Amino acid sequence: MDNMPLCEANNVPLTPITFLKRASVCYPNRTSIIYGQTRFTWPQTYDRCCRLAASLLSLNIAKNDVVSVLAPNIPAMYELHFAVPMAGAVLNPINTRLDANFIASILRHAQPKILFVDRNFEPLAQEIFHLLPNEDTQLNMNVIFIDETDFSKRNLSKESDYESLILRGEPTSSLVTRMFRIQNEQDPISLNYTSGTTADPKGVVVSHRGAYLSSLSAIMGWEMGTFPVYLWTLPMFHCNGWTLTWSVAARGGTNVCIRHVTAPEIYKNIELHGVTHMCCVPTVFSILLHGNPIDLSKRSRPVQVLTGGSSPPATLVKKIQQLGFQVMHVYGLTEATGAVLFCEWQEEWNRLPEKQHMELKARQGVGILGLAEVDVKNTNTHESVPCDGKTMGEIVMKGSSIMKGYLKNPKATFEAFKHGWLNTGDIGVIHPDGHIEIKDRSKDIIISGGENINSVGVENVLYKHQKVLEAAVVAMPHPVWGETPCAFVVIEKGDNNQRVREEKLTIGERDLIEYCRENLPHFMCPRKVMFLEELPKNSNGKILKPKLRDIAKGLLVVDDYTVKPIKLIA
Amino acid sequence: MDNMPLCEANNVPLTPITFLKRASVCYPNRTSIIYGQTRFTWPQTYDRCCRLAASLLSLNIAKNDVVSVLAPNIPAMYELHFAVPMAGAVLNPINTRLDANFIASILRHAQPKILFVDRNFEPLAQEIFHLLPNEDTQLNMNVIFIDETDFSKRNLSKESDYESLILRGEPTSSLVTRMFRIQNEQDPISLNYTSGTTADPKGVVVSHRGAYLSSLSAIMGWEMGTFPVYLWTLPMFHCNGWTLTWSVAARGGTNVCIRHVTAPEIYKNIELHGVTHMCCVPTVFSILLHGNPIDLSKRSRPVQVLTGGSSPPATLVKKIQQLGFQVMHVYGLTEATGAVLFCEWQEEWNRLPEKQHMELKARQGVGILGLAEVDVKNTNTHESVPCDGKTMGEIVMKGSSIMKGYLKNPKATFEAFKHGWLNTGDIGVIHPDGHIEIKDRSKDIIISGGENINSVGVENVLYKHQKVLEAAVVAMPHPVWGETPCAFVVIEKGDNNQRVREEKLTIGERDLIEYCRENLPHFMCPRKVMFLEELPKNSNGKILKPKLRDIAKGLLVVDDYTVKPIKLIA
Repeated sequence: MDNMPLCEANNVPLTPITFLKRASVCYPNRTSIIYGQTRFTWPQTYDRCCRLAASLLSLNIAKNDVVSVLAPNIPAMYELHFAVPMAGAVLNPINTRLDANFIASILRHAQPKILFVDRNFEPLAQEIFHLLPNEDTQLNMNVIFIDETDFSKRNLSKESDYESLILRGEPTSSLVTRMFRIQNEQDPISLNYTSGTTADPKGVVVSHRGAYLSSLSAIMGWEMGTFPVYLWTLPMFHCNGWTLTWSVAARGGTNVCIRHVTAPEIYKNIELHGVTHMCCVPTVFSILLHGNPIDLSKRSRPVQVLTGGSSPPATLVKKIQQLGFQVMHVYGLTEATGAVLFCEWQEEWNRLPEKQHMELKARQGVGILGLAEVDVKNTNTHESVPCDGKTMGEIVMKGSSIMKGYLKNPKATFEAFKHGWLNTGDIGVIHPDGHIEIKDRSKDIIISGGENINSVGVENVLYKHQKVLEAAVVAMPHPVWGETPCAFVVIEKGDNNQRVREEKLTIGERDLIEYCRENLPHFMCPRKVMFLEELPKNSNGKILKPKLRDIAKGLLVVDDYTVKPIKLIA
Repeated sequence: MDNMPLCEANNVPLTPITFLKRASVCYPNRTSIIYGQTRFTWPQTYDRCCRLAASLLSLNIAKNDVVSVLAPNIPAMYELHFAVPMAGAVLNPINTRLDANFIASILRHAQPKILFVDRNFEPLAQEIFHLLPNEDTQLNMNVIFIDETDFSKRNLSKESDYESLILRGEPTSSLVTRMFRIQNEQDPISLNYTSGTTADPKGVVVSHRGAYLSSLSAIMGWEMGTFPVYLWTLPMFHCNGWTLTWSVAARGGTNVCIRHVTAPEIYKNIELHGVTHMCCVPTVFSILLHGNPIDLSKRSRPVQVLTGGSSPPATLVKKIQQLGFQVMHVYGLTEATGAVLFCEWQEEWNRLPEKQHMELKARQGVGILGLAEVDVKNTNTHESVPCDGKTMGEIVMKGSSIMKGYLKNPKATFEAFKHGWLNTGDIGVIHPDGHIEIKDRSKDIIISGGENINSVGVENVLYKHQKVLEAAVVAMPHPVWGETPCAFVVIEKGDNNQRVREEKLTIGERDLIEYCRENLPHFMCPRKVMFLEELPKNSNGKILKPKLRDIAKGLLVVDDYTVKPIKLIA
């Protein structure tokens, strides 16, 4: 039994890039991408990716080189998800909502050989380059712009733009064979930065094997059949669009790309192209409900919506479903290569009152098939908690779709994998029906509009202000963004320094918010600052954040309530 | 990038046995198995499998030991699909339609440490043991009978029967941890014999990795959602029930087990348990249509039927769909660990006339997601054929769900994997829409009632008859079994031997059929023998089988036409 050598026929490394080749063979007549007036079929997308990969190779891109991208959900962003790994390189999609400072720190850390930049982000790119004067990072980095292309009047004067790379690529058949035959399925395919601080960017390295398993898990968890028409509301830079970039190819689906995630764009594209599937954070539900909602409930089937990032509020889910959307809640994290818990609907739930449906939908669900195990463990004893829906523990998991680790950060990697599990830091329970529900996030994360904000990072900025003695940042509810940071601040008393005492009076909420906006991406800034005489602490001096959260829960954001959520994500 | 060591958290070998543990955690309240009055939940099935595996280990079953089973689709057969690999051993499910001679040759080849025998097959087992007198095979083999158990009056007097193994098993938690942590995903999980001859049994070795990928591919190819109610019409001994044994656990489904595959049993179980899915060979359609068909078309949804083994005749598909079944055609082979092509329905086909639907459904379809590649290649040049629906070539494939090889048969393994692909021997075309259709089987295979019959094996038996000079066996159509063997025979002329000439006259069709029945499993025997003066041959002396097939196509089986297809498979 043991003496059966593996060979080329029965041992092929697992990688999601095979889905592209398969789609071009199995679905030759189907539309792969729709973007405005642009249409591609799967063989065309295959051809374009092969050409692009060939061009990358001719630019001396080698195995494990990083290729970064700063772009919204345009066709190029989709193509790069295949072409970059086909060239043996590692895709690094950067969150376009970050500010220049943050992105510069990511580039410094990732050291990409190429940075693709959507032309609309040129000003941001220039700002970034000013932060990297004469640094190796910039000197070694080839910048390639992606222009909007009207394929009917193709005019390629620029020598180094995206389309000319595709035009110039020469994918010989032996080169293509090599592109699809990766050496090792444990090789990295993507590098995805999570929220951190500029001093400590954490780059999650995802393997081909992990991406393959996660893409298929998403198909099964969502029960996504063949030929979905998938609307790209979720940014592809978020964990490769929760790996749906690859799943849609696996299903021979159509990617409907949109540059701006606004209610009119979403409704228009759903109606124009018969969208069947989309992913988004719950914040997008608010956008859809506030932006001249169109009743889609008369369509032959609802739009399947996968939502995650934070628990969808029951009232939002109810309202959005009445419009013709069918919501499924998932829980995921970049470290686990996308969604790992799916709230699978159980038929007997149909017999329960509707109010309960929404509560059940808000639970995180059961583990995907690509993982070996998901569990909730007592944080002290590391024993599994009973499935009683009450006993809390940390959500942990193991399996081959978990990240390889954090790039150049063995310490954080070691911490993440302590006890032989990926420790999520999220606290939850297991219900008697097997579904996991998150009760608290032990990491100091605030989720605003689907973006994770590391509250410690915001606190660090506040602490740097000369008049701030102590700061604690927690989530406060926000009607549009779900959560938003709220800062509790103790001002430097300076009893022995009359000057400081006098100036103290001049600091107000606006000042600190303005200060944060100068030093942080906009979405990370507190929308509310409360000044306290002292922060509540336990006997060991640890700040009692739960107490602050209770206060924050009672606050109301007035000035933002009427903000029109236009261009939310792009 | 390369310096990221894998660890227990992010590198877990892929195996379908994790589906069982997951089902017990994620689907604790759901029914896993229904069999007559017997009901199990997933935690119960999990517990029973852990106990059984613990007992196997206590019987000194070690890694890579073979455990054979001779049983129909009863709960024990399902449980063994998990318990045997959980003990590190290799499951060998034996086709119960084979005769004692054939099974003895399989046992001699596989050298199992344990043979599980359903009590109803005790006479067959005794016959087998008589063929292995004092051989090592028998001496080293522990025989354990599986009795029908009435769990309400559990009475376990027999010390070595199946239920007492489960009762006695002591799965400590460290033992269970070890059971689910397999060492290497390339380790064998199953050993499945294909049709061959008694002299040359070919045992396909399937890996954990292959079984995992195939099980998930089946879920995706069939679009099988959560909680299927799966009726076991397809024997689990056929390629592990086309890997659905494991898929149903992955989906938290219910296995409806039946001992006898008859029309009344099928209809009864569909109605009683709300069956949603079943697999079968096209022959079962005939059984369902002839056996007092019940109109199921009024149910809220049709029964999803996966059919394969041979192309389903269009008229059969049409009739069975009118009864409330929804048919999907697949193509597979044991060497590829189950179904590898799925005839995925394309929405635009709905606009075509119904007659064409059936023709489209009869095509074999597109490759599964678990395979890296499926192609049709010119048998001489090994170039891919154009996708024109006309140019023929051999269907080949590669990927990690392909078998490890044939046990103790490196020569056949080498042949199967020549040119770096699994060579199926089946000749087909690729249509412009990407679907593959089989046009001819280059191997001499006759498919009767879903069983593959190697015509060369039948010919070899005929050649051993002293009066047979030449023999060629081809398929002839059969109204129930699809195909059945038809033999063309040239009798020894014996010009120089008056005795033979005289005796020649006494040989008839019946004699040769009777002779075959004494030397072959019943279903392999020719139902028709034609005597020719000489066999048609080409200039090289090669028998022109296509010519014989043309003759056979015009024949009609009269004596079997009214046979009641009862107990077809079990």
